[in-house]
Amino acid sequence: MKILVINAGSSTVKYQLINMEDDTVMAKGICDRIGNEGSNIEFRPMGRDKIVVEKDMPTHAAAVKIIMEFLTDPEIGVIKSMSEIYAVGHRVVHGGEYFNKSVIITDEVKKAVEACIPLAPLHNPANLTGILACEEAMPGVPMVAVFDTAFHQTMPREAYMYALPMEMYQKHKIRKYGFHGTSHKYVSERCAALMGRPIEELKIITCHLGSGASVCAIKGGKSVDTSMGFTPLDGLVMGTRCGSIDPAVVTHIMEVYGLSTKEVNDLLNKKSGVLGVSEIGCDFRDLELLYYKGNERAILALDMSHYSIKKFIGSYIAAMGGVDAIVFTAGVGENNAFMRKEVLKAFEYLGVKVDDERNNVRGKEREITTEDSKVKGFLIPTNEELAIALETQALVK
Amino acid sequence: MKILVINAGSSTVKYQLINMEDDTVMAKGICDRIGNEGSNIEFRPMGRDKIVVEKDMPTHAAAVKIIMEFLTDPEIGVIKSMSEIYAVGHRVVHGGEYFNKSVIITDEVKKAVEACIPLAPLHNPANLTGILACEEAMPGVPMVAVFDTAFHQTMPREAYMYALPMEMYQKHKIRKYGFHGTSHKYVSERCAALMGRPIEELKIITCHLGSGASVCAIKGGKSVDTSMGFTPLDGLVMGTRCGSIDPAVVTHIMEVYGLSTKEVNDLLNKKSGVLGVSEIGCDFRDLELLYYKGNERAILALDMSHYSIKKFIGSYIAAMGGVDAIVFTAGVGENNAFMRKEVLKAFEYLGVKVDDERNNVRGKEREITTEDSKVKGFLIPTNEELAIALETQALVK
Repeated sequence: MKILVINAGSSTVKYQLINMEDDTVMAKGICDRIGNEGSNIEFRPMGRDKIVVEKDMPTHAAAVKIIMEFLTDPEIGVIKSMSEIYAVGHRVVHGGEYFNKSVIITDEVKKAVEACIPLAPLHNPANLTGILACEEAMPGVPMVAVFDTAFHQTMPREAYMYALPMEMYQKHKIRKYGFHGTSHKYVSERCAALMGRPIEELKIITCHLGSGASVCAIKGGKSVDTSMGFTPLDGLVMGTRCGSIDPAVVTHIMEVYGLSTKEVNDLLNKKSGVLGVSEIGCDFRDLELLYYKGNERAILALDMSHYSIKKFIGSYIAAMGGVDAIVFTAGVGENNAFMRKEVLKAFEYLGVKVDDERNNVRGKEREITTEDSKVKGFLIPTNEELAIALETQALVK
Repeated sequence: MKILVINAGSSTVKYQLINMEDDTVMAKGICDRIGNEGSNIEFRPMGRDKIVVEKDMPTHAAAVKIIMEFLTDPEIGVIKSMSEIYAVGHRVVHGGEYFNKSVIITDEVKKAVEACIPLAPLHNPANLTGILACEEAMPGVPMVAVFDTAFHQTMPREAYMYALPMEMYQKHKIRKYGFHGTSHKYVSERCAALMGRPIEELKIITCHLGSGASVCAIKGGKSVDTSMGFTPLDGLVMGTRCGSIDPAVVTHIMEVYGLSTKEVNDLLNKKSGVLGVSEIGCDFRDLELLYYKGNERAILALDMSHYSIKKFIGSYIAAMGGVDAIVFTAGVGENNAFMRKEVLKAFEYLGVKVDDERNNVRGKEREITTEDSKVKGFLIPTNEELAIALETQALVK
């Protein structure tokens, strides 16, 4: 079975064709600058060099048709005909309170995705456009929507409600939704498999640490809390996002600098985080190199990042009444042994023991604590496209 | 030695005369509506009935003179002459980064308190007015400033910095300051005394839970983190304050409701918290009664409040790498056995064992966990006026 995974942005379509027999990627790439001049497709058939070709793509539908052409190209393609594609899995950012799991796309589903546009005004319209483009280009092929928010719909009320006037929730759906759900779910399931124990009896904390980052408390396989909130701005100190700050700081900055709501949002989302603190950049690898050289700003930025991760893990241990495993994933989580050690060291009081040799690795699925560590630490590379394909397969099989 | 404690607000002066021989209150009360029609003084000499008398008080200086008249009144007064007052301790809300402890008030100190006005635009001007009024009415009497923020000035940078562009801190002093410092310091010192151990070797978490509320991590007697931030809005779910929320929610509410920065601040400070969630009120005792009757909104509001306390305690256990004692104080903390048990139960994984009989008490200084509890729980009534008097005494002695 071959499944096409689609992640549509406002002017992009990322795609990946996955062979479900062995979970391997057959081809992947991105259509860029859709609707603009210079639109192009990057196509990377596995085992061969990637190519980038300029193509006229006025719409997402045009982009999807070009992806189909490349996939089935007699020379560089990887399948003979589109009929080989069994289903399409779509990443959809926001499912609001409508979806607590992945679903086969129907007219009802599309209406609900549309109803969530106020909650994700940049992402959901693009995701919907991607769905419609694929339906047009591949009539009759089952489509599945996999939501970033769905996994977190199991949070209890005390975790997802904000202490705001009730009308904010009732009329305007303002609450914590959380994101990166596909990734948190995937790595927590891998974690249970690696531990050889049923996930139903485990308390797992997953740290998805990329340029965007979130921590999730998973009890019995269900998300019970997560650090991102109504939007992906809240929680950890990130590459360019501030994470949790005193809400009164938002209005104070607006008053001091005379900023509009859009401008202050821009500042908090794009000019803050380790970038704002270090005034160097938002690349954690660069900051780590400077950290070792004693650069004060890099030290401060990374200390703040690590401290925010420790505090969220600590709060989720309290929320679950203990923890069996702490998992690191995504760019920073998979590649930064120093950060993993710094963070796990904080939990020595619970009997966590980092195994330096095991931990000194990049991007490999493995335990990073000692045999006798009371709480286990894991590095588990995330694979959101494979996770979407697996969700899709489970529904269409 | 007798010390007068002054807490000046914009149109009020709270006072308390304390006999330092036995730490007892000789008289206390409040001047209300200063500068307005109907201004009056409440005077409560200990052991006798309180009286309320209308008096003309155009200024804070006039109010202080009337307090002096009542204190030395031949019939209802408690001292013969103002010369019996050895010193005056002033509560000052914001000491910014100028003050990490209480100080004898000099011209320099007054200038620094003035420099902190942008950080506490409502409180610091009133506190300063109170100082000037006392200096005028009691020339030659030593005055001491005791700051709400000073105790938290020992926080490390990763705890007090926000992940915002560095200029926000450098130019506009936007950082976490924390509040309730006098109370957190006082009850942590009482806790060490009750444990019979030097505070230098203890990790203590103090929960000051009133209508305003904050949690503080105290390592070796020093504040290393606290839940309030740049302002007292951040952190726990409070009576009418929202506590920590996604900062993007602030601008979203402004856009949805067309609110100004002042209006949204008002909403987050005065119409949120358990009041906003329950739509019943902000009195935790009323909500507790309704909780037991199964009122859904009261249940949700209190569940959220308890959950936020648990999460902050959990994060501070991680921040300190363990905890020896958890202390509850202030109105809700001292009177609500149910809340204390709910919160402490979350830490059974650390060996916390609540002793129901010990815990079933109001406003008494005592341990509330069992003899064999690995982490100790305490109820320690706070006494901010006495704490201010003690700080004052230590400086002027």
